[in-house]
Amino acid sequence: MHRILGIDPGLHITGWGVIDYDGFHLKYVSHGTIVSQPSDGISLRLGNIFKGLSDIIEEYSPKEVGMEEVFVNKNPISSLKLGMARGTAICCAGVLGLKVFEYGANKVKKSVVGVGHASKDQVSIMVQKLLNCGNIKADAADALAVAICHAHHKRFYAVAV
Amino acid sequence: MHRILGIDPGLHITGWGVIDYDGFHLKYVSHGTIVSQPSDGISLRLGNIFKGLSDIIEEYSPKEVGMEEVFVNKNPISSLKLGMARGTAICCAGVLGLKVFEYGANKVKKSVVGVGHASKDQVSIMVQKLLNCGNIKADAADALAVAICHAHHKRFYAVAV
Repeated sequence: MHRILGIDPGLHITGWGVIDYDGFHLKYVSHGTIVSQPSDGISLRLGNIFKGLSDIIEEYSPKEVGMEEVFVNKNPISSLKLGMARGTAICCAGVLGLKVFEYGANKVKKSVVGVGHASKDQVSIMVQKLLNCGNIKADAADALAVAICHAHHKRFYAVAV
Repeated sequence: MHRILGIDPGLHITGWGVIDYDGFHLKYVSHGTIVSQPSDGISLRLGNIFKGLSDIIEEYSPKEVGMEEVFVNKNPISSLKLGMARGTAICCAGVLGLKVFEYGANKVKKSVVGVGHASKDQVSIMVQKLLNCGNIKADAADALAVAICHAHHKRFYAVAV
């Protein structure tokens, strides 16, 4: 059994999802979001993302982490903010000895919906069908989707970042 | 006595410097760099920046952190990389309960050289004069400079990020 943590990092909302994969079957384990308030200041917000992910990794002991390749925003300030949340998530995995694998958004969508240009709703519905679990928060559905994508691809050509 | 940690974060080289300030006098404590190899992969590199800064904070017990306000690169990919290193440094301070204060590059230069458009060499020479210490690595001089800037400004209008 292989346990995978998917992370969808964001300064405001960081989605996460944990699945098990035995080589043939996917099994839902858990999911959730880490939400931070803009009024809290960046150091507290990033510190809380780090602590939140550390707790999740300690509780569920995933072996690997899947993340979507970054969508580089044309706005450098947005890229910087996204980079800070992303850096926090990746360094948390690194500090705790987990390898991080990245997949392009189209590859993630193709893994769960079958086509590369699916809507957010389609991804969410298919994640729930594939994992046989109801009611997944939208922000965590993307995290579970990239965990599923890693489960499907890791044997073939996954390269850790 | 107030102990301040200055950090100049970068994915390849993160400079750091520690000073004491009693309200009138600056005192050099320590400085150094955390260097990571591109061949190591992002999660290991960011993990090492986090661990390196954690060790420094544990060893020197600074009360506050000073960082230069980010120079937003026109290239979104560069901004993202810088954001990841910067996010790692800020979240490390946040996790360990330290407040982070940011200062614009011109304000930092003005604090140590007296003018806002000084060269890197001028900053390095003035940092060594102000702290009465020889031979500071270039990447750490910027970190000490922002620590000095925070010492000079914190009483008046510093706002934590």
